[in-house]
Amino acid sequence: MNFEVTILGNSSASPTSSRHPAAQSLKIHNNHILIDCGEGTQMQLSRYKIKRADITQIYISHIHGDHMMGLPGLLLSMNLARRESSIEIFCPQELVEVLELYFKYSETNFSYKINYHLLNEYTSEIIFENDDYTVKSFPVFHRVPTWGFIFQEKRKYRKINQEACKKFNIPFEAYTSIKMGNDFTDENGLIIKNIDLTFDSIAPLSYAYCTDTLFHENVIKAVTGVDLLYHEATFLHDRLERAINMMHSTAKQAGIVAARAMVKMLLIGHFSSRYEALDELLAEAKSEFDNVELADEGKCVNLNFI
Amino acid sequence: MNFEVTILGNSSASPTSSRHPAAQSLKIHNNHILIDCGEGTQMQLSRYKIKRADITQIYISHIHGDHMMGLPGLLLSMNLARRESSIEIFCPQELVEVLELYFKYSETNFSYKINYHLLNEYTSEIIFENDDYTVKSFPVFHRVPTWGFIFQEKRKYRKINQEACKKFNIPFEAYTSIKMGNDFTDENGLIIKNIDLTFDSIAPLSYAYCTDTLFHENVIKAVTGVDLLYHEATFLHDRLERAINMMHSTAKQAGIVAARAMVKMLLIGHFSSRYEALDELLAEAKSEFDNVELADEGKCVNLNFI
Repeated sequence: MNFEVTILGNSSASPTSSRHPAAQSLKIHNNHILIDCGEGTQMQLSRYKIKRADITQIYISHIHGDHMMGLPGLLLSMNLARRESSIEIFCPQELVEVLELYFKYSETNFSYKINYHLLNEYTSEIIFENDDYTVKSFPVFHRVPTWGFIFQEKRKYRKINQEACKKFNIPFEAYTSIKMGNDFTDENGLIIKNIDLTFDSIAPLSYAYCTDTLFHENVIKAVTGVDLLYHEATFLHDRLERAINMMHSTAKQAGIVAARAMVKMLLIGHFSSRYEALDELLAEAKSEFDNVELADEGKCVNLNFI
Repeated sequence: MNFEVTILGNSSASPTSSRHPAAQSLKIHNNHILIDCGEGTQMQLSRYKIKRADITQIYISHIHGDHMMGLPGLLLSMNLARRESSIEIFCPQELVEVLELYFKYSETNFSYKINYHLLNEYTSEIIFENDDYTVKSFPVFHRVPTWGFIFQEKRKYRKINQEACKKFNIPFEAYTSIKMGNDFTDENGLIIKNIDLTFDSIAPLSYAYCTDTLFHENVIKAVTGVDLLYHEATFLHDRLERAINMMHSTAKQAGIVAARAMVKMLLIGHFSSRYEALDELLAEAKSEFDNVELADEGKCVNLNFI
């Protein structure tokens, strides 16, 4: 059951030659999702061998350019490639208006359907659900309406008890059926109960994406207990005043959120272009929470192994 | 008198991991100009050490995303850097509407003024002029209103006749005045006529930017006699039908335009992502016109040396 995040961009509003604006690729089981789509995302997808054709959903946190200016180009490239399957975009209402005006003037006839799902500014709610995962949005605290997202997988399958299966000589071909909760009947008609061949599933994994926000108690509440938290860390804490003015967080604050929300692992990103090296940002977050890593571009974190 | 073009992007609509959408930096004397601004241009500027703060003018050929989707991000980054001097943008009316709607929703308060200059769809005309250069727009033939641009420098100074200046013992400090056409008066009051100390200036250099167009007689007429021509070459000629349908040109056609327009040098770009290697496109253009080069990203062509 694959559940992994690949970082495509870790820059804040002003990108550098080596750091791109916000974008992440998320794979949950066989679902391919894009979270934010800053300028250059389609090139980053290509660089990290992620097929844009596979993407079925795009979640946009807010309308600031570094989180969505790659979206029109990506949608146009999907069109040039004659995409047929529809795409679901979860985003603010204003973004729809801008996109639709632009597509009108660029005289684009889409080969596929774009379904917009508007985010609700005031409540935390389930905005998508299928057999594999649910997505919950929650408001964060930035200069324009901005949302965080929690992606939580559904564990459909029980965990195979390898030792028991070996003991009962269960053939490998039967594992899928057993994982799905079925008993096993051998060639002599003997029934072996599922409970004797499997363990309960582990708790479903969850990922919280939380960018462009002030440090805030409500954010801590919203992300409490997730396995992996991505939290913005635009500045070092010596620029707290600037962070507050711009409605961003510091690396230290990201660490505090992770610690208080009792997550398993923290990824920090959305770094200001003023920092050429990022080690100080990492050290500052680590002073508050141990298991933290930089959201280096190209980094892939598999939630099954944290 | 510097006059040089640096290529920032050479891809057509679907960029690849190594080729970016259209953008060029143009330096005429001390004027810094950007031509087109596809997605990722601000990162490319940074990669090639071109300061965005120096840019005073931006020319946008048309509203398709691969020619302008880097513009909002660039303007926002200039704002974050607290730019004070105004910027001049020459572009279609529709682009202004899209930008202004976007800036309204992103709640951007600009620290500098953006002056828009709308392009006229139906005529070829001088759209800008200062002491150093003139810019002429001309309509080309694409699916939406699209313009080519000709940048022509003004030669303000006469050329020093080194031999004559040596003969008359002219001090080096007097050269600037002499270049400007003044006579020289020596310490004994003897006047040496400017014409005896200088040559006529060489003809002013000119650069034509011509992208996203069908092969067309009017384009050839418009760019006739320029020193350097950038012409799109989206496809090889075996895809002429596709080129015509998409209102693009082939590499062979770009070569024909250069030959018939009697330019000194041709740069081809705007390559389809279907071509991993570009040597065939170059060879095809070369079959029609000898002095042609690929618009490789990062390439800088100085018009004084072609």
